[in-house]
Amino acid sequence: MAQRDTKREILISSLIIILAFMILPLPTPAAAQEKPQDKPYLDIVGRLSGLGLQNEGAYEILRKLTSVGPRLTGSPGAAAGVELMRQVMQDLGFDTVHLEPVTVNRWVRGGTEKARIIGSTIVGNIPLTICALGGSIGTPELGITAPIAEVRSFQELRALGEGVRNRIVFFNRPMDRMLIQTFGAYGSAADQRVRGASEAAKLGALAVLVRSLTLRIDDFPHTGLLEYDPAAPKIPAAAVSTAGAEFLSALLRKEPDIRVHLELNCQNLAPVPSANVVGEIRGSERPDEIILVGGHLDSWDLAVGAHDDGAGCANAVEALRLIKTAGLKPRRTIRAVMFMDEEFGGTGGRFYAMDERRKGEKHLAAIELDSGGFIPIAVGGGKPEVFEKLKKWEYVFKPLGITMMRPGGGGVDVAPLAAQGTALLGISPDSQRYFDVHHSGLDILESVHPRELELNAITLAIYAYILAQEGI
Amino acid sequence: MAQRDTKREILISSLIIILAFMILPLPTPAAAQEKPQDKPYLDIVGRLSGLGLQNEGAYEILRKLTSVGPRLTGSPGAAAGVELMRQVMQDLGFDTVHLEPVTVNRWVRGGTEKARIIGSTIVGNIPLTICALGGSIGTPELGITAPIAEVRSFQELRALGEGVRNRIVFFNRPMDRMLIQTFGAYGSAADQRVRGASEAAKLGALAVLVRSLTLRIDDFPHTGLLEYDPAAPKIPAAAVSTAGAEFLSALLRKEPDIRVHLELNCQNLAPVPSANVVGEIRGSERPDEIILVGGHLDSWDLAVGAHDDGAGCANAVEALRLIKTAGLKPRRTIRAVMFMDEEFGGTGGRFYAMDERRKGEKHLAAIELDSGGFIPIAVGGGKPEVFEKLKKWEYVFKPLGITMMRPGGGGVDVAPLAAQGTALLGISPDSQRYFDVHHSGLDILESVHPRELELNAITLAIYAYILAQEGI
Repeated sequence: MAQRDTKREILISSLIIILAFMILPLPTPAAAQEKPQDKPYLDIVGRLSGLGLQNEGAYEILRKLTSVGPRLTGSPGAAAGVELMRQVMQDLGFDTVHLEPVTVNRWVRGGTEKARIIGSTIVGNIPLTICALGGSIGTPELGITAPIAEVRSFQELRALGEGVRNRIVFFNRPMDRMLIQTFGAYGSAADQRVRGASEAAKLGALAVLVRSLTLRIDDFPHTGLLEYDPAAPKIPAAAVSTAGAEFLSALLRKEPDIRVHLELNCQNLAPVPSANVVGEIRGSERPDEIILVGGHLDSWDLAVGAHDDGAGCANAVEALRLIKTAGLKPRRTIRAVMFMDEEFGGTGGRFYAMDERRKGEKHLAAIELDSGGFIPIAVGGGKPEVFEKLKKWEYVFKPLGITMMRPGGGGVDVAPLAAQGTALLGISPDSQRYFDVHHSGLDILESVHPRELELNAITLAIYAYILAQEGI
Repeated sequence: MAQRDTKREILISSLIIILAFMILPLPTPAAAQEKPQDKPYLDIVGRLSGLGLQNEGAYEILRKLTSVGPRLTGSPGAAAGVELMRQVMQDLGFDTVHLEPVTVNRWVRGGTEKARIIGSTIVGNIPLTICALGGSIGTPELGITAPIAEVRSFQELRALGEGVRNRIVFFNRPMDRMLIQTFGAYGSAADQRVRGASEAAKLGALAVLVRSLTLRIDDFPHTGLLEYDPAAPKIPAAAVSTAGAEFLSALLRKEPDIRVHLELNCQNLAPVPSANVVGEIRGSERPDEIILVGGHLDSWDLAVGAHDDGAGCANAVEALRLIKTAGLKPRRTIRAVMFMDEEFGGTGGRFYAMDERRKGEKHLAAIELDSGGFIPIAVGGGKPEVFEKLKKWEYVFKPLGITMMRPGGGGVDVAPLAAQGTALLGISPDSQRYFDVHHSGLDILESVHPRELELNAITLAIYAYILAQEGI
């Protein structure tokens, strides 16, 4: 201890704190020294962000929503989610809260989904971790056992031609990890999941296994919708975990004649009634002009869909809660819509756009959040001509660390509104972690960070409020 | 199934993918259509980011580094970290790899640190989760048992005055969660940890308990350096988990006379030899002009310091690896320095600046990464006059999602270089999750995301390479 130079340490320690601040790129709202008349709404940013971060209300709403379990379209869990979100908004005292009916298809995973490697002299008969793809038919009761044809593209598949007859086709093209934006990486591989089954069926394949759409190598399979081409026989389709896919591929190089046994008893049932959930803060001057904020209430069934899209729903409700709690009175109506059935085709969005309640309403803008609840990094501004009008608000988002206001926005559920001239806007969260959990058993409440989630809700509240005051 | 409108689904599904892209604010490097002669270095961004994201090399380096365990200044773990990083850089074939000696103080936590509430009629005698603060003296062997004086500020402490004599002072001011930037929130509460013990000792307190510096409410205590004022008696100091702090505070409102028993056997030992670890790619034209990139090699002892500051070390080495692997030949020297002893006062940084090897060297710029390995959102540009020269490079960072180039940068270890005119620059990662793990048992490898980490290394490689080519 004698050697410690305490004065120097105090100096250095002060430096630690001083320097920590030096590297901070962002002013805090309280530190924003702009005069309100020069840059309107900066005071609102401070109020809404303080209010949001203090309470982390979005996470609390998400906790409630996910407490009902997975919310697969048409399932009892989805029905429970509808009722719960209606109740949450009613308890928050929004001006109008109602349900709008939607008829949705229903698919059930069933109790059996398994796959097993058969006939390897190296590893014996061992299981692969799989899950049925959404919409898939089941296998015969005793399953399908067949040799494997591994391909990385439809081109490779067609080159094999008749060579895949009576085989299980194994689509094993990874997402392109060199792309910075993981949505682009997802887009680079999603065709295998969406169209793989029918493309393989046209050539006589018995079933397909598809590499899970994630950049991680782990043993969690990722589901998602497939689409059967009416021109092809329907065959069963499952996603295999990336670890399973890597293992199977390596084994096939040594033992190309191994077989895989696949059993699925998923099935499509009759359509069922469901609903979109709608709540709003009614505009004080132009109540029939709507700023829509929303997400989709249905999720996949392997977990509670905390990011996809519980986050979008929680943030829509929290945005309205923040505006109401801050005592703001928007000129135009700000409406939260939780759409049903995004994952199985967007029925809720189409029903919403066509509902007769839309008569006499004008939707100026719609912001759908459906990219996970991670730290927001960009605000989107619709088509280029809309963006030109909106970009003057960029300074409002700077205190939130968001400076890249860009054209763009949209979402499956709000897309049908584009026909009536609604500007489709967006908020883009960081995408690096999204596909780690997307459509898998990992999309749980604990994968969401309360402050990251809340910053999306705060950004949404600010964006919606400015649009409600200023129009476009 | 008869009801499924497959064509419509195909349409909608295509929309999903189209719209997912619409909301993307960022061009991927491959999509960057700029002509190289208009905007130099954009091709380099594509090469370095592809190379980095493909291999996630920073995470592999971090995995190796953290495999030696915690690296508390002066500990065998720190010595193992020094040797390991020297070896890693040597194996990577950097032009020069060497150690520079540093003499550091040594503090050990000891085998005992516990606290217990005594004398509550409500809960009986129950433990509190605590850890000694770095540099603290221990308690007498049988511990200290005393009533509690809870305060939220030094002002409150001084108002109590003699009222704290023979008590344990409990500093319980939370970080300001309403601040968007968590470094600011940290700064709003860190004085209790740094100076609380001596301030309380001046008034006759026997020991201090300090609320852990995190925004989460959980049962993980967060350590960190304290500073004893030579004008005050030295008393023991420990951090209590935020859950423990909340509990203790609530209990004190009902039972103000409860006592806490505290036992610590941490101690300060004699100084020991250690080292900074240095490796470089030698400049082809101006080898004596240095662009320094670095982090600190020491960590706290409650975990392996994966974010603080294993991430900074791994990214410095990975940045050089990327530049070398891409076949780039920088004009000036790019040097990775892993400093020893940041956490206990910055000895390594001072030794580095004073080392006689510095004669004849000119450090143009220094970029220390010490804010965790989360997604990078901003690049810093030193003092305003330096920033003016650097901001023309903002377009280079846009494909990485970084557009907020701002003045600022620095770090404890590189601060001593400022006297010789070195520009202190920085890269700011998202700060929302950092203090969840900072200085606690949660700062483990698994809390780091490989792609988030790598994007810091890629950003660093690009920044360092441009500086090496262009100067400032």
